Amino acid sequence: MEFLTGIEKKERLTLSELTRAERASSEAVTEGMVHSVRDMGEVVFVIVRSREGLLQAVYNRSEAEKAENGAGQADPAFSSPLTELREGQAVRLKGIVTAEERAPHGFELRLTGADILSRPEEPLPLAIDKWKLNTSLEANLNRRAIALRNLRERAKFRIQEGVCRGFREFLTAQGFTEIHTPKIGAKSAEGGANLFKLQYFHHPAVLAQSPQFYKQMMVGVFDRVFETGPVFRAEKHNTKRHLNEYTSLDFEMGYIDGFMDICRMETSMLQYVMKLLDTDYRAELDLLEITLPNAEKIPYVRFDEAKRLVSEKYGRAIRSPHDLEPEEEALIGEYFKEEYGADFVFVTHYPSKKRPFYAMDDPQDPSVTLSFDLLFDGLEITTGGQRIHEYRALLKKIEEKGMTEEGMEDYLDCFRYGMPPHGGLGIGLERLTMKLLGEDNVREACLFPRDMTRLKP
Amino acid sequence: MEFLTGIEKKERLTLSELTRAERASSEAVTEGMVHSVRDMGEVVFVIVRSREGLLQAVYNRSEAEKAENGAGQADPAFSSPLTELREGQAVRLKGIVTAEERAPHGFELRLTGADILSRPEEPLPLAIDKWKLNTSLEANLNRRAIALRNLRERAKFRIQEGVCRGFREFLTAQGFTEIHTPKIGAKSAEGGANLFKLQYFHHPAVLAQSPQFYKQMMVGVFDRVFETGPVFRAEKHNTKRHLNEYTSLDFEMGYIDGFMDICRMETSMLQYVMKLLDTDYRAELDLLEITLPNAEKIPYVRFDEAKRLVSEKYGRAIRSPHDLEPEEEALIGEYFKEEYGADFVFVTHYPSKKRPFYAMDDPQDPSVTLSFDLLFDGLEITTGGQRIHEYRALLKKIEEKGMTEEGMEDYLDCFRYGMPPHGGLGIGLERLTMKLLGEDNVREACLFPRDMTRLKP
Repeated sequence: MEFLTGIEKKERLTLSELTRAERASSEAVTEGMVHSVRDMGEVVFVIVRSREGLLQAVYNRSEAEKAENGAGQADPAFSSPLTELREGQAVRLKGIVTAEERAPHGFELRLTGADILSRPEEPLPLAIDKWKLNTSLEANLNRRAIALRNLRERAKFRIQEGVCRGFREFLTAQGFTEIHTPKIGAKSAEGGANLFKLQYFHHPAVLAQSPQFYKQMMVGVFDRVFETGPVFRAEKHNTKRHLNEYTSLDFEMGYIDGFMDICRMETSMLQYVMKLLDTDYRAELDLLEITLPNAEKIPYVRFDEAKRLVSEKYGRAIRSPHDLEPEEEALIGEYFKEEYGADFVFVTHYPSKKRPFYAMDDPQDPSVTLSFDLLFDGLEITTGGQRIHEYRALLKKIEEKGMTEEGMEDYLDCFRYGMPPHGGLGIGLERLTMKLLGEDNVREACLFPRDMTRLKP
Repeated sequence: MEFLTGIEKKERLTLSELTRAERASSEAVTEGMVHSVRDMGEVVFVIVRSREGLLQAVYNRSEAEKAENGAGQADPAFSSPLTELREGQAVRLKGIVTAEERAPHGFELRLTGADILSRPEEPLPLAIDKWKLNTSLEANLNRRAIALRNLRERAKFRIQEGVCRGFREFLTAQGFTEIHTPKIGAKSAEGGANLFKLQYFHHPAVLAQSPQFYKQMMVGVFDRVFETGPVFRAEKHNTKRHLNEYTSLDFEMGYIDGFMDICRMETSMLQYVMKLLDTDYRAELDLLEITLPNAEKIPYVRFDEAKRLVSEKYGRAIRSPHDLEPEEEALIGEYFKEEYGADFVFVTHYPSKKRPFYAMDDPQDPSVTLSFDLLFDGLEITTGGQRIHEYRALLKKIEEKGMTEEGMEDYLDCFRYGMPPHGGLGIGLERLTMKLLGEDNVREACLFPRDMTRLKP
């Protein structure tokens, strides 16, 4: 019987292994896709893309042709003619690592052999080797899997990975448990209009617009929980800020003294994420010329006060007292940037009218809730707050809101049998990424966006 | 203006902080839910559950009653009468940490004060304080959020967290990029029968049964990718092994020499996961009396050979030559356990007839594919293999399978413009967890299972 014992080190080197100084003048093998070929006549540069970046490979045309016409003395594993190297091929290349100031990373690979692993059928439809992909967002999204081969497009999603990874790593270290809650559920009384409906065998069902109920229920089990997963919103908004499916970073924690504990946890989490990006995703930050925002100290301001401040400073009348209009959010961001150099701001005490039934009202003033949004550069990226944890208070609120308990029996049971004080938040991963990237359309920060008119790729 | 700078250390201690030996004889404050109250007459034990486990708190009835009848000299923050402590309450407790051999962790908290944070409306409907939850699976699932408050039930999902976390940590270290791909998509020609259908605004849409196409497409971008997310299967199976929504751990990697590279990566990943569980989840393993399986060396065997071996050893006729029946899988597991002490076995070279169109056929014998399943204790927990990466080969296979390219245009475009050789796998998180736990029903390893008849909680 034969056994596997795990991965084995292959002779092939990754870009970072290959470009270490001690490799200079030695033979190396590496792999990647031909990103571009620059034919200078006698000298041909073959730029190879792999997950770590670009490698400059080079060959001399006359020498290559001579070798190709000679007898088969070359290494049979690297017998593809160098002169056949073309954009879009997947290749394995052999050569001598040579210091070369003008090449990326200060090294190039002087080719001695090639193995063309696959050949494209047609030339690429987008100039992915350009520094910036010179195409409309629409064309980019239509050819998404090709467009993402552009280094800068790709780097955006490395940054996104860092955010998601940092969120999890930080919370795990803080004693949170990761949960996976169902995305298909029975229809409940809450939030009917924005739900996608489906037929589940013989039952009507809906897609989860948030893991809200489940994460609260799991506070009674694990004290602190988080989830990173898709949520579905059938909102008929086709704006630059909306996606109909997005990745929500949720956490919920028990034994809080108030909703500010949630804000503090988010502040520390953001600090952790920024540090992680700064170290582990430095190459991508540089490629995209991103300056990380400052999460070291984040101002907080009450909803009504925030409205007043921007109305006064920017001479904008307060039109809807219970809501922040997008333009108002942008102005709040601007205000705190100008006055305090702040990239983030917590806006607290949102009106009860506009918050869901489970939000806890402020005992000092029940017209507002113990809740908050976090704005990043003037865009809401988080909604959170303290939740009602007393069974009777919850029933009372449901009644006041004119709702019924239908479909919420399991949720309510948790409170009937006892729950600790708790609260939590949800972060839109794509919105946070978008603002980190300095983009103005959330679709730029989603691999395969879903909006009212886009269902593919 | 006021600012937040992150989390602040509170005076409250977690269980592990509180039970450190140097705390003995000092005053401490901690929080949790009252798991049970054992009234011994003069002495009352109050067992408190928090995320790290159980704490034994204790008070003397006469002293408590005396204090309660006395003037309000007690700490106003801890003024709840100790005699009112009841199961299901969320509490903050103050007391003196005292070494006590018979208590969990060797310490108990001699209570000097309590703050009852919330009170349940009714006694718990399940005896969650019992060592094993003495109830049917059906009753457990019906009252899921309560049942999970049982320590052993809860521990199962800590183990599950460890598996998912280990999967990500290992792959991140191996240069994989995490991706988030859409769960709602346009209808494609592939796998129609098992898809949940929904109306997406004015378009027919389906829920993703796997991130297969997307992860392959992303190999052209990031070389190596992984995703951990929900998948949806409208399979009309109501067995112990099936869920209609589950968490799939997927990875896909380029530049492989063959499908065994995928098996090796999985082997190393499993070794990493077992090590992580062994260290960071030791308390939960002990609680559940789990012996971790051996992933150090994993045997592999061809599909036809595996069938022959068990047929010979167990005298079972081969009824369906192109498929493994569940009973056959179980016997293969038994065979390799008996013969080689193996917990896992890779079964390779599945018949082409039963594999999807994108599976690469073996050039030596096109009736079989360069693919595999991983069996754990006789249950399939992984399906993987090498994929076709040449555009024309893919078109040819689609035609041979009698399929059309409809709905697969974006997927096929990636190949048209060039893709590296690649392969990958998908692991059912709940199945893997179930086998680690030694359970025989996959619902035991899912927080909120979805099956043909269960859509809530």
